[in-house]
Amino acid sequence: MMKVLLSNVVNGCRVGSVTELGRHGNKVLEFPGCLLYTRCGSAPHLTYDVLQKLDTVPVGVQITLPTLAEQHHVVKDFQQGIGKFTGMEDFFLYCSVQDPAVREATGYNFNKGVSVWGAGGRIKLEVADFMAIQKAFRPDWYQCLCDGDTASADTSTKRVRKSVDRSLNFLDQCLEIHQKSQEMKGSEILGVIEGGDLLEERLRSARETCKRPVAGFVLDGFQSFAMERETRKNLLKAVLEVLPKDKPRIIHAVSRPDEVLEAVECGVDFFDSSFPYQVTERGCALVFPFSKRSHTDVCDETMIQGPDDSSQETTENQHCRGSIEDTRSQRTKFEMDLNDKEKYACDFRPVLPGCSCYCCQNHSRAYIHHLLQTGELLARVLLMMHNFHHYFGFFAAIRESLHQGTFQELKAMVTQRTK
Amino acid sequence: MMKVLLSNVVNGCRVGSVTELGRHGNKVLEFPGCLLYTRCGSAPHLTYDVLQKLDTVPVGVQITLPTLAEQHHVVKDFQQGIGKFTGMEDFFLYCSVQDPAVREATGYNFNKGVSVWGAGGRIKLEVADFMAIQKAFRPDWYQCLCDGDTASADTSTKRVRKSVDRSLNFLDQCLEIHQKSQEMKGSEILGVIEGGDLLEERLRSARETCKRPVAGFVLDGFQSFAMERETRKNLLKAVLEVLPKDKPRIIHAVSRPDEVLEAVECGVDFFDSSFPYQVTERGCALVFPFSKRSHTDVCDETMIQGPDDSSQETTENQHCRGSIEDTRSQRTKFEMDLNDKEKYACDFRPVLPGCSCYCCQNHSRAYIHHLLQTGELLARVLLMMHNFHHYFGFFAAIRESLHQGTFQELKAMVTQRTK
Repeated sequence: MMKVLLSNVVNGCRVGSVTELGRHGNKVLEFPGCLLYTRCGSAPHLTYDVLQKLDTVPVGVQITLPTLAEQHHVVKDFQQGIGKFTGMEDFFLYCSVQDPAVREATGYNFNKGVSVWGAGGRIKLEVADFMAIQKAFRPDWYQCLCDGDTASADTSTKRVRKSVDRSLNFLDQCLEIHQKSQEMKGSEILGVIEGGDLLEERLRSARETCKRPVAGFVLDGFQSFAMERETRKNLLKAVLEVLPKDKPRIIHAVSRPDEVLEAVECGVDFFDSSFPYQVTERGCALVFPFSKRSHTDVCDETMIQGPDDSSQETTENQHCRGSIEDTRSQRTKFEMDLNDKEKYACDFRPVLPGCSCYCCQNHSRAYIHHLLQTGELLARVLLMMHNFHHYFGFFAAIRESLHQGTFQELKAMVTQRTK
Repeated sequence: MMKVLLSNVVNGCRVGSVTELGRHGNKVLEFPGCLLYTRCGSAPHLTYDVLQKLDTVPVGVQITLPTLAEQHHVVKDFQQGIGKFTGMEDFFLYCSVQDPAVREATGYNFNKGVSVWGAGGRIKLEVADFMAIQKAFRPDWYQCLCDGDTASADTSTKRVRKSVDRSLNFLDQCLEIHQKSQEMKGSEILGVIEGGDLLEERLRSARETCKRPVAGFVLDGFQSFAMERETRKNLLKAVLEVLPKDKPRIIHAVSRPDEVLEAVECGVDFFDSSFPYQVTERGCALVFPFSKRSHTDVCDETMIQGPDDSSQETTENQHCRGSIEDTRSQRTKFEMDLNDKEKYACDFRPVLPGCSCYCCQNHSRAYIHHLLQTGELLARVLLMMHNFHHYFGFFAAIRESLHQGTFQELKAMVTQRTK
């Protein structure tokens, strides 16, 4: 039986590990931590081999129904589970209902089920369909079917209540099938806390879900665009107070570094890594600092080459000071836009000087810029390697800072780059 | 000084190696052989690391102006050549004027120069521009600027003559700059044989080019779509008879396995590997046999899994017998179309049973099909690994067969799959 070892709680931040993970008994999920984001069950653009070479790759992998549900009959015929089908059987697998990198379409859920969107369009999932998929996939953990369609600003109180009611109803039905099923013996179900931005509904959802025999909790509907940061913080604190301390808490689509740190302070254990994927897709590279080393190395003079060092130094410093303007709608202060011709076409330094990843060790900003300009997919392969490396390193730094008592220092370092 | 060692000539096929390759003095280019096809100077979709893990990767790399010319001022500023800029400095670099994977637009060359098409559109290259690029890139070999726009069916005799005249004129101008240039000391220029499908013009082009101090020859304008196979064979034989035996001969855009074997019999030494790239881009995998081993392993029963073995066995046998219909316009008999849902959605065997490549060792046809269906770029990464592995293996098999005296057997094995 899975065990949560809570080794410390520092100002609300939980530090610990999940052990005795069923068929992955020798593995340990440390928290605060992130899960590896995947598409079709594989790290985006990367082979298993390449992935293994990155530092601090998470033990836990998040697979999503939108990128996999259409093929569930194939996986069923395969008879050996989704991990083996995708070549990821060495990882601890968590299956989520939605894809955290994609904003859910609103208005497509219904009383008996939920819609997810695959390559071929809408897939309607009632409880029976959903559980048939889980039986074929056999993940270690799976998020229960839930109605999280409360993120848009004009969601009514009535709609929020309905989302809580439906999700509890789905949970009861799923639990019944789960407990009777032989195939699901190795899997654990996670209950989902809904309730949009209404405190009352959030608490009702949390209290009711706690009464059911779930292995852990998924905090749904807290997406960046869905609510103010202050609102999220207050709701998270209230909800997490209600939840038992000995079960893991996962949040989705809250994966910007500053939001991660806030959620860690509220007591969230696990995050997804959709953020580095989104950064990669827009041709950007994560460069936010999370250790003293990453600070100094950026300005290490030995790394600077090229015809116009002084102007490049200035550009770099502007980065450090967070004064880059957000020209692209989605871009954050945590990344460098390698599409920018003026800045990077002749910049021969690594993406992040001092970074030990394959991309930074072997290629220059100018070359990545050229690959992006020419539309070569290799740009995404290289950026994905760097961005995962950087993001996983960030989580290692969070855990380290909690052990060392330097979490606030880390937070100051990371958040100085935002407005 | 570069040396061509011709160890044997078997029924027209040349077997040998090019040695003493300047700054790559310890390397040997064996022929018949292929050059590694690249885009932006890197293997498509693959990092240098992944590439190194494939078997029998060519020592020589082909870079192309269309994917690199736009950035030549950047490479000039960089001051260390294109190999270092793209991270491929360990390879022997050959720079071609056009991209063999892309059909040239017709009607854009002019008396003083040639057009290539980059991501940003047309790039007009006069002799001075072209040589400035070569000085910045510093490849080991480069194809001389040439007018090869004779491939369309309605090319007039006058136009063909003009292409020969212009190309000779470009050669004289380039040679003059080359010989005076300090930067080009480590590079060698290859003369280009033009002349479309006119024997007389081909011979004039060959004879005139031979008189110039070129290091080798590029056989241009023999693309698959440009002429009948019989015409190509006759022209190639006639041209190659004229060329000196001690200089290498490269052909472009003739890279289908059956065409390669024919061209080898005519005396061509080097080919490009645009074919496996094109196969990858359409979601297909090379499965043509080139050794007894690849034959038997395809039907190895231990590799067959899944719910409906017998029907899959039939599908496989149909492949071996070459009875698949060409549904996609570009598809050839040498490949398997993994987009095909009916055939591959539930086929859990490796792409090519018995193949030792990373893709075949770790993934199933069903999973590659799913990645393609979902639009995941990882499909291309995996297919590129397999297709390069298979294609490079094919060239190793050609050399082996010439040493063993079994070239005709190989040819029969490979060509049985075509109509």
